[in-house]
Amino acid sequence: MAKKSPVVIDLKFGRASVTAALGNAFAGREVIDMALPENAGRDLSGIPYAVVWKPDPQLFARAGDLKVIFSGGAGVDHILSAYELPDLPVVRFVDRSLTDRMSEWVVLQALAHLRRVPAYAVQQRARVWHEIDPQPEARDVTVGIMGLGVLGQDAARKLKVMGFNVIGWSRTAKMIDGIKTFDAAGLDAFLGGTDILVGLLPLTPDTRGIYDARLFARLRQGGALGKPVFINAGRGGSQVEVDVVAALEKGVLGGASLDVFEREPLSPESPLWGMESVIVTPHAAAASDVRALFAHVEEQIERFESGMSLQHVVDRKAGY
Amino acid sequence: MAKKSPVVIDLKFGRASVTAALGNAFAGREVIDMALPENAGRDLSGIPYAVVWKPDPQLFARAGDLKVIFSGGAGVDHILSAYELPDLPVVRFVDRSLTDRMSEWVVLQALAHLRRVPAYAVQQRARVWHEIDPQPEARDVTVGIMGLGVLGQDAARKLKVMGFNVIGWSRTAKMIDGIKTFDAAGLDAFLGGTDILVGLLPLTPDTRGIYDARLFARLRQGGALGKPVFINAGRGGSQVEVDVVAALEKGVLGGASLDVFEREPLSPESPLWGMESVIVTPHAAAASDVRALFAHVEEQIERFESGMSLQHVVDRKAGY
Ligand SMILES: NC(=O)c1ccc[n+]([C@@H]2O[C@H](COP(=O)([O-])OP(=O)(O)OC[C@H]3O[C@@H](n4cnc5c(N)ncnc54)[C@H](OP(=O)(O)O)[C@@H]3O)[C@@H](O)[C@H]2O)c1
Ligand SMILES: NC(=O)c1ccc[n+]([C@@H]2O[C@H](COP(=O)([O-])OP(=O)(O)OC[C@H]3O[C@@H](n4cnc5c(N)ncnc54)[C@H](OP(=O)(O)O)[C@@H]3O)[C@@H](O)[C@H]2O)c1
Repeated sequence: MAKKSPVVIDLKFGRASVTAALGNAFAGREVIDMALPENAGRDLSGIPYAVVWKPDPQLFARAGDLKVIFSGGAGVDHILSAYELPDLPVVRFVDRSLTDRMSEWVVLQALAHLRRVPAYAVQQRARVWHEIDPQPEARDVTVGIMGLGVLGQDAARKLKVMGFNVIGWSRTAKMIDGIKTFDAAGLDAFLGGTDILVGLLPLTPDTRGIYDARLFARLRQGGALGKPVFINAGRGGSQVEVDVVAALEKGVLGGASLDVFEREPLSPESPLWGMESVIVTPHAAAASDVRALFAHVEEQIERFESGMSLQHVVDRKAGY
Repeated sequence: MAKKSPVVIDLKFGRASVTAALGNAFAGREVIDMALPENAGRDLSGIPYAVVWKPDPQLFARAGDLKVIFSGGAGVDHILSAYELPDLPVVRFVDRSLTDRMSEWVVLQALAHLRRVPAYAVQQRARVWHEIDPQPEARDVTVGIMGLGVLGQDAARKLKVMGFNVIGWSRTAKMIDGIKTFDAAGLDAFLGGTDILVGLLPLTPDTRGIYDARLFARLRQGGALGKPVFINAGRGGSQVEVDVVAALEKGVLGGASLDVFEREPLSPESPLWGMESVIVTPHAAAASDVRALFAHVEEQIERFESGMSLQHVVDRKAGY
């Protein structure tokens, strides 16, 4: 049997998880891990596969024989927007576990705002026993999801099981059972019916800065929760953070849960940390499971080498 | 048409919700609302129906012609354990909305502990950006539900959709799709496989003080979350609060969410308020919707008056 082609990895993830996952991955294949000092100046020609998350900007120039680029995460903005990329297929990471964990986070945040977790936390710290009334139930509240891809559709289904009324918005029209959907042209109607906005959009030139003052002003006021809530787990580049803060301060928004930020890590100076109705998590909604990532890459390499088409290839023009 | 029989109500709920609901309830039927001063000394003989939540202890003696007692909530311990009750059918409140809202609360709390909400809240207050690692996913964690009645079964189904492994325990054996169940004799095996314990038991002589040090010590240690978590939305009388506090302090428990307490309102002195891994809510997991309660009572009165059997009648001997 011919020797298997090597793979270069440049993953800015926690080292422990990468090292542990490499133990059982890429059997019979040489792995050049760019995190190891001995690989710093190494000749990368002749390597067909790269698995990357925020890679060294020179990687693609140095690895001139690449045939496929694998993104270490579901999003590809970290490479498409930041590098001069060779014209190669870019495969993104789609994974059952990542999807499930994102839905855990989204359902958790939607329920947290429905059930007034921020207000109850304030009361708990003050040792105040007081039932916040009225308490609408999920079916009184409409969650509007921007982005109905792999993640948005799974979150929609689970929010629905929890009782929420769910609507969704995407670039192209979708048919999803039990969920009213809107395409690009229907944005106004979509926003006007939304009490809890969930952002699960990729970052592209079209979605950069999309969550701004103008958009927040179009969300439904006076729904069952009183004021709309903004939840974002897509990309921070899609939100205008000064507008988020201003909307919260002015009461255009009643609360927010943010996992992603314009600049990460979020600066300790950001007012978002200290706002009572805001829940901040450190881009941890759905971290890639590195074992699952490598299994996915091996599966795609196998398809590629046996002449089948690659799956989850990014549309370079659309940017996701 | 004969005049409809009157109904006496003694509901220690928020007044506004009772008054609002009475506006549209019991058409053509006289309603004696014991919260009104003018009814204080009133003759209650000849009244066949009472709708009560923590009623005046003398109500049942005064209303000597009662035929049916309707509980204002799903639980009936507030009357069965506290009063000399006449030997009459006691109908408890079972309601779609109450069930859905309890499951919202249970799923919210299970996800909150899975996704380390208490620890992330501490980090947020300190403006610390740090991903807590490892982050198990729901399928790595077993939620064990004590009490597989109307509420326990609905919570089980929804926890399952969110990915959790779910097991359950009840007095009599149950068959529930996708959920491993244990009966009274299987308590040890049930507890030994449980990472997140959810209490949805009624308060009866058998369940009083059931959540104690001995029980917490039998929960699984070293599961995906490290330490077991205790969630209780049944009744506070089932938990030994000094044991809950001690188990948290000693690390036998890693966290808790409590909606019910031995004495309510919870005293400002209770250490539970101030424990970082504890989430306290003021018996608000699933408040009865008073409109839905009256609709349910009217439906049951109609059944009763047309000679059909009452539904949701409590087993006085079992105590629930
Ligand atoms: N916070 C985290 O931990 C984390 C983890 C994983 C992923 N993410 C983020 O989540 C994003 C979504 O992931 P996914 O797997 O669901 O992606 P996906 O399957 O590619 O779906 C993207 C969705 O966004 C829609 N969309 C894209 N551009 C749009 C535009 N200009 N206007 C309207 N709709 C637009 C797409 O519309 P069409 O259906 O019409 O194509 C599609 O429905 C990723 O790109 C990543 O940035 C975050
Ligand atoms: N916090 C809140 O806001 C709130 C709101 C509503 C209700 N609740 C509480 O939730 C409780 C449960 O409500 P539900 O409607 O689900 O009641 P239910 O339908 O009567 O179910 C009770 C369950 O507990 C089990 N059980 C009772 N005694 C037991 C024992 N000694 N050992 C083992 N299992 C036992 C029963 O077993 P079998 O199936 O074998 O009979 C049944 O599965 C209520 O009683 C009330 O106290 C709290």
